[in-house]
Amino acid sequence: MERVYLDNNATTMVDPKVKQAMDPYYMQQYGNPNSLHSFGTEVHPEMSIALDRLYEGIGAADEDDIIINACATEGNNTVLQGIWSGKLKENRPFHLVISQIEHPSIAHTADWLESMGVRVTRLPVDEQGLVTPEILKEHVSRGSADLVSIMWANNETGLINPVQDLCRTAHDMGALFHTDAVQAVGKIPVNVGELGCDYLTFSAHKFHGPKGVGGLFVKRGAPPVSLLYGGEQMGGKRAGTVNVAYMIGMGLAMKLATDALDYENTKVRELRDRLEDALKRIPDTVILGRRENRTPNTILVSFKGIEGEAFLWDLNTNGIAASTGSACSSEDLEADATLRAMKLGADLAHTAVRFSLSRFTTDEEIDYTIETIRKVVQRLRSISSTYS
Amino acid sequence: MERVYLDNNATTMVDPKVKQAMDPYYMQQYGNPNSLHSFGTEVHPEMSIALDRLYEGIGAADEDDIIINACATEGNNTVLQGIWSGKLKENRPFHLVISQIEHPSIAHTADWLESMGVRVTRLPVDEQGLVTPEILKEHVSRGSADLVSIMWANNETGLINPVQDLCRTAHDMGALFHTDAVQAVGKIPVNVGELGCDYLTFSAHKFHGPKGVGGLFVKRGAPPVSLLYGGEQMGGKRAGTVNVAYMIGMGLAMKLATDALDYENTKVRELRDRLEDALKRIPDTVILGRRENRTPNTILVSFKGIEGEAFLWDLNTNGIAASTGSACSSEDLEADATLRAMKLGADLAHTAVRFSLSRFTTDEEIDYTIETIRKVVQRLRSISSTYS
Ligand SMILES: Cc1ncc(COP(=O)(O)O)c(C=O)c1O
Ligand SMILES: Cc1ncc(COP(=O)(O)O)c(C=O)c1O
Repeated sequence: MERVYLDNNATTMVDPKVKQAMDPYYMQQYGNPNSLHSFGTEVHPEMSIALDRLYEGIGAADEDDIIINACATEGNNTVLQGIWSGKLKENRPFHLVISQIEHPSIAHTADWLESMGVRVTRLPVDEQGLVTPEILKEHVSRGSADLVSIMWANNETGLINPVQDLCRTAHDMGALFHTDAVQAVGKIPVNVGELGCDYLTFSAHKFHGPKGVGGLFVKRGAPPVSLLYGGEQMGGKRAGTVNVAYMIGMGLAMKLATDALDYENTKVRELRDRLEDALKRIPDTVILGRRENRTPNTILVSFKGIEGEAFLWDLNTNGIAASTGSACSSEDLEADATLRAMKLGADLAHTAVRFSLSRFTTDEEIDYTIETIRKVVQRLRSISSTYS
Repeated sequence: MERVYLDNNATTMVDPKVKQAMDPYYMQQYGNPNSLHSFGTEVHPEMSIALDRLYEGIGAADEDDIIINACATEGNNTVLQGIWSGKLKENRPFHLVISQIEHPSIAHTADWLESMGVRVTRLPVDEQGLVTPEILKEHVSRGSADLVSIMWANNETGLINPVQDLCRTAHDMGALFHTDAVQAVGKIPVNVGELGCDYLTFSAHKFHGPKGVGGLFVKRGAPPVSLLYGGEQMGGKRAGTVNVAYMIGMGLAMKLATDALDYENTKVRELRDRLEDALKRIPDTVILGRRENRTPNTILVSFKGIEGEAFLWDLNTNGIAASTGSACSSEDLEADATLRAMKLGADLAHTAVRFSLSRFTTDEEIDYTIETIRKVVQRLRSISSTYS
């Protein structure tokens, strides 16, 4: 067994087809798409196909906007800071509502906005770990919020929030609705038309596209939001020379990911369930979040008496990559916000490990992982001071 | 003759060595550098080499910061918006000084800041097209400016501003100094230590790296500036999953570009001069900006009686790519700010065409270009209503 990669919520392998599709745009078709000569114009058809694929992938309408940017962090900052600066210009207050389980690119942006005088409400989660319309209604009074931003699926637990109901409730309250769909795209159906959200963000590297390119959906009629000013790229909404190769790669990655949704929800789910069932058979383990509420690829599991870090280290020695805490910021040693919001005891939080699969995960890899985990748990518990 | 690319100030071909260096980071070493397992950590050594190459390329000291981001537009916005929001937080006014010949990523950001209540001063240029310390002193009183941002080399004309003197003058006035060095890196020596600037921005795709990655230099002790909040990437100064492949590519591109500086200033300059001399021999042409004040690769030329667009179209038909107006936003039809600031008459501005070479430009390409231009000028003038 070579290495086994089970950290797909942190980032994914680029699909070989995506890599191949990007290759011509470095040394052959390297023109700036803003240029009027053939080097510039010859990339337009493929860019336009890429954009079509993104529209189709998330169910956007022609009159909606999809702005290509550098990542979901940029998309999230653009929405939150964009609404803020619009209010600031008109000298009006801004009330932002997020949840306690948002990714740092929402949570820390909200912290910063708060330091700039913005009112921020952070919704708790229910006993299942979900943000519900009831919680929103309970904490925010009608007409008071300007923007509600709730993630679609959580990166740690894979738990899927009821975004359609949340969106409807936010709109009923008179607020705009944004969702960070980074962990939803490619795992569950994402359709902005059905959802009705005003803004939605995604990042290519979470669905087998490259790291460093993302998209921001803006519904027709929603207040425009900008963060980078400059050239006329993206219709003047996001300046900066377009990363042609990655934009084309992201378009194809979106198509491949949505084409593979069935596979994700049958085969990947089956592999995940098999791994999960095997983990459950190990004594004193807790799986966090109900299976039916989770994306098909994610397991967050706690092994009593075993520090998450020590466990990962042993797994890594055996060639298996998994994650603890927020995989997007694992160097960040503070306890993960999601686990804190779920009110997990310190021992559960410290022993939690995340496995996230992808469509490239194989049966053999899962067999090997199950076998290895059993051995590792046994070894670590045999030397654990907190397990008996 | 295949196609001839003479639009290197708009964007460049990726150096084949750079492309090759990036290739392993999509399907093999695709880990998130923030992850603690081998997929995450195995990319650290090459990332660290890339960072070293960037430090060396621009002469930064260990205690300085170089923040990897998505482009110079992001870098420029980060500096201008970062200083602004810092002032705003402390409820203090902000006086920003730029020039009339800045790239839109400075000029439009300044426009936007002005709409947010910031005081903006836009310095004119002298008869040579340069921003000088005298102009700065004449338009800005001591102690009044907070930040002075003047580009190192202009994208249209290639004219090199006396940034060292400007930086000293800005500091004497009590202001911070930023320079947009996008068109300087790889063309002339860039050394932030000697320059003494507080901030400097660059973009990889202007020196044979990929489009969609750039760097922001921040001198030790200079006020920190941030735009994207979220994860702990770049020491918390620029959130968003790092584009590992492009960061590594940019590092190598920087090394190759600085290694090739001699070649740029001998061979590329010689090719440029040969082309320029040939253009001057065509009657009724004007070369804009004194040769000794320009980057070695750039010519901005006007052919009396010939619309720039028509000329480019004919060149394009003959396989030659050049540019008119701002090449970074050629779809933008308003007269270019640089040409307006230089107070060129409308006829000069409308007939201006830019040729920008690179280290990949060959003798044969220049021969072919000279020959083609002669024919094109003759043809277009023979049917011109404004030339006789
Ligand atoms: C839910 C969620 N939102 C946002 C992000 C940020 O994505 P990026 O780092 O590509 O900006 C991530 C992962 O990093 C994530 O899991
Ligand atoms: C002088 C100058 N500054 C900034 C930029 C912006 O670079 P980017 O489009 O990579 O953000 C460009 C070119 O596009 C430029 O020529």
